[in-house]
Amino acid sequence: MESVITPDFAPLAHALEDRAAQEDGYSAQLAVYHRGQLVLSHTVGEHLAGDGLTCVFSCTKGLSSLVIALLLQDGLLDPAEPITTYWPEFGTHGKGALTVGQVLSHQAGVLGVPGGVPSQILLDSAEYAKILATLPSIWPLGQNIFGYHAITMGVLMEELVRRVTGKELKEVYEVRIRKPLGVDAYIGQDASLEPRYRQVLPGANQVGAFFDPFSPAGIAVNSSAGFAFENGPVYSWHEAANSPMMRGIGPASMGGVADAKSLAAIYAASFGPVPSLDAERGFLSEDTWSRASTELVYGPERTGGNIQAYALGFMKPTPNNDFGSIFAYGHDGANSSLAFADPAYQLGFGFIPSRNEGERDTSTAIELSRLARQIVIGKMMKARG
Amino acid sequence: MESVITPDFAPLAHALEDRAAQEDGYSAQLAVYHRGQLVLSHTVGEHLAGDGLTCVFSCTKGLSSLVIALLLQDGLLDPAEPITTYWPEFGTHGKGALTVGQVLSHQAGVLGVPGGVPSQILLDSAEYAKILATLPSIWPLGQNIFGYHAITMGVLMEELVRRVTGKELKEVYEVRIRKPLGVDAYIGQDASLEPRYRQVLPGANQVGAFFDPFSPAGIAVNSSAGFAFENGPVYSWHEAANSPMMRGIGPASMGGVADAKSLAAIYAASFGPVPSLDAERGFLSEDTWSRASTELVYGPERTGGNIQAYALGFMKPTPNNDFGSIFAYGHDGANSSLAFADPAYQLGFGFIPSRNEGERDTSTAIELSRLARQIVIGKMMKARG
Amino acid sequence: MESVITPDFAPLAHALEDRAAQEDGYSAQLAVYHRGQLVLSHTVGEHLAGDGLTCVFSCTKGLSSLVIALLLQDGLLDPAEPITTYWPEFGTHGKGALTVGQVLSHQAGVLGVPGGVPSQILLDSAEYAKILATLPSIWPLGQNIFGYHAITMGVLMEELVRRVTGKELKEVYEVRIRKPLGVDAYIGQDASLEPRYRQVLPGANQVGAFFDPFSPAGIAVNSSAGFAFENGPVYSWHEAANSPMMRGIGPASMGGVADAKSLAAIYAASFGPVPSLDAERGFLSEDTWSRASTELVYGPERTGGNIQAYALGFMKPTPNNDFGSIFAYGHDGANSSLAFADPAYQLGFGFIPSRNEGERDTSTAIELSRLARQIVIGKMMKARG
Repeated sequence: MESVITPDFAPLAHALEDRAAQEDGYSAQLAVYHRGQLVLSHTVGEHLAGDGLTCVFSCTKGLSSLVIALLLQDGLLDPAEPITTYWPEFGTHGKGALTVGQVLSHQAGVLGVPGGVPSQILLDSAEYAKILATLPSIWPLGQNIFGYHAITMGVLMEELVRRVTGKELKEVYEVRIRKPLGVDAYIGQDASLEPRYRQVLPGANQVGAFFDPFSPAGIAVNSSAGFAFENGPVYSWHEAANSPMMRGIGPASMGGVADAKSLAAIYAASFGPVPSLDAERGFLSEDTWSRASTELVYGPERTGGNIQAYALGFMKPTPNNDFGSIFAYGHDGANSSLAFADPAYQLGFGFIPSRNEGERDTSTAIELSRLARQIVIGKMMKARG
Repeated sequence: MESVITPDFAPLAHALEDRAAQEDGYSAQLAVYHRGQLVLSHTVGEHLAGDGLTCVFSCTKGLSSLVIALLLQDGLLDPAEPITTYWPEFGTHGKGALTVGQVLSHQAGVLGVPGGVPSQILLDSAEYAKILATLPSIWPLGQNIFGYHAITMGVLMEELVRRVTGKELKEVYEVRIRKPLGVDAYIGQDASLEPRYRQVLPGANQVGAFFDPFSPAGIAVNSSAGFAFENGPVYSWHEAANSPMMRGIGPASMGGVADAKSLAAIYAASFGPVPSLDAERGFLSEDTWSRASTELVYGPERTGGNIQAYALGFMKPTPNNDFGSIFAYGHDGANSSLAFADPAYQLGFGFIPSRNEGERDTSTAIELSRLARQIVIGKMMKARG
Repeated sequence: MESVITPDFAPLAHALEDRAAQEDGYSAQLAVYHRGQLVLSHTVGEHLAGDGLTCVFSCTKGLSSLVIALLLQDGLLDPAEPITTYWPEFGTHGKGALTVGQVLSHQAGVLGVPGGVPSQILLDSAEYAKILATLPSIWPLGQNIFGYHAITMGVLMEELVRRVTGKELKEVYEVRIRKPLGVDAYIGQDASLEPRYRQVLPGANQVGAFFDPFSPAGIAVNSSAGFAFENGPVYSWHEAANSPMMRGIGPASMGGVADAKSLAAIYAASFGPVPSLDAERGFLSEDTWSRASTELVYGPERTGGNIQAYALGFMKPTPNNDFGSIFAYGHDGANSSLAFADPAYQLGFGFIPSRNEGERDTSTAIELSRLARQIVIGKMMKARG
């Protein structure tokens, strides 16, 4: 990514440089659109420099949620409808009482198969969807309990898209979002882009972690069997991400490959015009992004125990995950990445580091997001005089 | 406040002295009534010495809740009624399904206006109430989600009092509670008391805090615009408190001015006789304070992410906010103040420091409350022999 | 307990030795059954060596829950039935709306009597049950709020067993579980076993703890009056446990006396055959243990504020209490003990230290449980080739 640093947003570049100075080998891309203009695009460190693309993990869920929002806009999906309206086979074990909105806000309790599924199932979305339809929820339904469906949220989204469009989610994404904008953010990366792919580096989130493959956290990451390609229950995030097969297939939960500028551009173009991409208006109407980003659940989630909030697939900010306003919609990723739109601030934001940074008082992504918002507020107040 | 230290309660005075010795410039007032007698009234440090009064922030919500409880006792308000019984205009966006009890236990989700309102609205309760009535909840209703309405809880209370009495909450408070007891705890301080007002000092709760004015926490404190009187999104608690205009108006959420002895006296007089104030019986019947202090919500609240519990406006104790028994009712304040009644212990308690003390393992207020309760238990056990 | 260390499970013995080396005077028993075989039985330190038995605190609740599960299997109890089907007198103050499942998953809010009950009531289960039936819940019902009924859960279980069998819970336990297996895990210890009883040592969980006897936490442990046998509101866990009268009576909540091998054996025998005990099949059918161990609540509990999950009396694992898979059922105890079955791993697990170890990043019990599960996974993977 070519470096773009406009004066008002220069403090973001400085903050990123400061962050890099704290840690040997730190590399990350940051990009911000404001009012449809690219106001910052900056990379620190060697690893992600140049035209590098890398796996964005669950930031992919945000892109997939944009596809869901388009189908909402098309009138093909209604969050208030029972899930069985579109997917009758899903209604086993009382799951027919769930609405689309509940399923897509992580309330269904079908985190995966206890003990795991082999890789071939994991990477065969239609087949995995059939299995998920038959499972009972692992928690009691009807109590607003929810838990992060780290992998299966993508499968659920993919099946819903299949049911109402007859197409794969990644096809809809390619045709309706990526290609029109001409950006480098792929769900299912073409092999021709391999030279630009940068490996995800080993991060702080895997050292010594034991994910019991029969526990919610282990089921959610399919720890025993499939995802880490048979290397056992110590989950290797970066190895999973770096499989060329995985990024070629592009699972809707975490198979996306992108640079930060493209993520920021897509979110900016979701709610407003982006002249440099010939996008004359947001590809989601205000009514659509409002409905798609309406918070549906809040509380301690069942999978990992963190306080979270979710909308229709999108992650929502919470006091401890303060990435934006009540209007923001986006998702973070396991490499400590973050991408979101915040219409309140007219921001599109993308941040991708080369590796997970572990636990910090405040994550780098959130610090940068706060600073971006403070800069916009400063501009608003100056404008007001 | 003249120092009163009865022998049994002297350990409280010593604990307060010990606390003061830990921190330069520490000043605080502490007062305790037990069985209707003033058993402790003690001030440490210079700042709040003598006849000083100061802003008590959200302890004001406790005083306002006492007014609500009186209207409950009068039969003018029923917590189980839909809010629209008293305030039909509030029923927009599905908020008509909320009961009075739900609204007054922070479940309505009308934390304020995203982006903030100007000071003139903020300080015009009737006008602000009109705006709140038109807002959608910022969280899904019907899921027992709640979040701390730091400012608007006062507006909601004020409007309810207006609707059922035709008077302002502060008038009802003055006529029915403050004047009869003759205490120095004002909602709307008279200008003649200005010489006794002691500035709230800059505290630990504002250094570097960024409250996004479009986030729940920022909306709740109206961070962008109004409350800090146009000084921007870094919220200045003590400046807001120290505005003479603000304390003159006396918003029901946080505009109260008092000394600790008066707060303790009011709570003591709410459930039992206080002979020194010519109060022959509690101004709330046991039935009233029981109903008004019945816990209505518990869990992680949506605004700041803390585990909290609320009754009809009153804060209730929780494991991490262990200020009293299950019968206790009161409220704390942003200057680390605390005032409550605890009928189980026959206690009225008031504690007001000169500034916010920041995060501690256990707050000074709770340490003092625990000690007060332990002293009472010791007396009970001695009495039992 | 004679030491049994099979090669695959030897790392568990080493981990326990390592733990003992960290702390002077550390003593603990650990036992594991896998696929019905005793694969580990090991004791470190002097205190619990030899044929020592000791109080297992709330691990007793797990044994009591096994009795409840048997009655479920017998068709005598249905978790979906209103509690009043079996216990009509319990339906006061709206508690008649509670199901058996809700009551046994800590949702009833009858933690005890505010202020405490005398020891004679506390140890008279039938009498205490009568009192509990008359109490209101201390939290609002119908909101999925729950809180740990540290003592009264046993009373509720005992009364239910009494109602549907006409017998005491401990009699049913003795006849249907303990005697047939011939194990040393007693609810109501016979005086003849006194020479084998080892005192619970003073632990880290009582230093300076003040349990307000009118707060949920204090009510739950009956802090003021009874349990600690009139020694006041500073709760003395080990003194309570070490009362010969208490262990003779054997309250279903925390009066059990056992060694680790017996706890592990019972859980192993609950779901599968244990040849060495002449148990040809699990005493619970798969259908029974599935239903009895189905999670019924999850979230921050009201008594102590921790994130917990419960089934029909059994504790369930959570992200912060990662003791087993979603199929696991068991309970921990206040001496940092833990015992559970995990059918996913074909494990029966028992761990009993001589004293509470206080707060650790991860408790010793959970570390050992994780290691046991990792060993089983290693065996599974090796078997798969």
